[in-house]
Amino acid sequence: MPKLYFEDFKPGVLGEFGPREVTREEIIAFAKEYDPQPMHLDEEAARQTMLGGLSASGWHTCGLMMRMLCDWFILDSASMGANAVDEVKWLRPVRPGDKLTLRTTVLDMRASRSRPEMGFISCLFELMNASRETVMEMRSSLIMSRRAAQNPS
Amino acid sequence: MPKLYFEDFKPGVLGEFGPREVTREEIIAFAKEYDPQPMHLDEEAARQTMLGGLSASGWHTCGLMMRMLCDWFILDSASMGANAVDEVKWLRPVRPGDKLTLRTTVLDMRASRSRPEMGFISCLFELMNASRETVMEMRSSLIMSRRAAQNPS
Repeated sequence: MPKLYFEDFKPGVLGEFGPREVTREEIIAFAKEYDPQPMHLDEEAARQTMLGGLSASGWHTCGLMMRMLCDWFILDSASMGANAVDEVKWLRPVRPGDKLTLRTTVLDMRASRSRPEMGFISCLFELMNASRETVMEMRSSLIMSRRAAQNPS
Repeated sequence: MPKLYFEDFKPGVLGEFGPREVTREEIIAFAKEYDPQPMHLDEEAARQTMLGGLSASGWHTCGLMMRMLCDWFILDSASMGANAVDEVKWLRPVRPGDKLTLRTTVLDMRASRSRPEMGFISCLFELMNASRETVMEMRSSLIMSRRAAQNPS
């Protein structure tokens, strides 16, 4: 299995993953649990808001992006998680029926000074709808094991 | 009803809300849907990871914080949403049984230049466990209607 370690990444566009269709049912289910504001719950109420119609909670969009990352390469990697997000921008509403594609770009890589068994991969994540409009941008660093740490000489 | 508008906030500590207990069942349910990494899904597998035991996905913790904000004051406010998060720090694991308290501090407030009917409230959100250890910090701006916009003279 091609398990990915820190050394397997390099700066530049990693690629794209998707599309993942978003349903009305999951938008409402997430909102009921985590973000029960009218624009995420009810079409009629949502029309009165700045979003102009039913739209996914921004936190739901973050969850969808995380799931796409897992299905794409995180679950087949030596990922150790993440401890911070540098920035999230919700640029456009995510609507029922939207088909989302995720593009990952590696911005920077550095080995940990204090823990040589791991490194940080700083990434830009761009989530786009079917019209290739960016609906969300996120910058965050993945923490990834170094291959050397798994195969000490 | 004491609906909160932009003018009702002021810089400083707004207060605290909670506690909200986190269950093992919801940690696993969220992970299955949005972040199926071993440390969020399975106690045994989680012990082998950096987190040392079953812990909530950081995105689940964000969702829980959003729900606490809704139940606290957002749903009774003239909130128009948010379009960005400036920073998220996941500082400590969130474990099954943790009782979370949310503290909100208003850092800065400014009226929108282009849209006088609304303003931005820059906030620091700190989520603490029962030992008063901060498990997550977030900085983000709420977009809130101005009272004048609702009651034109």
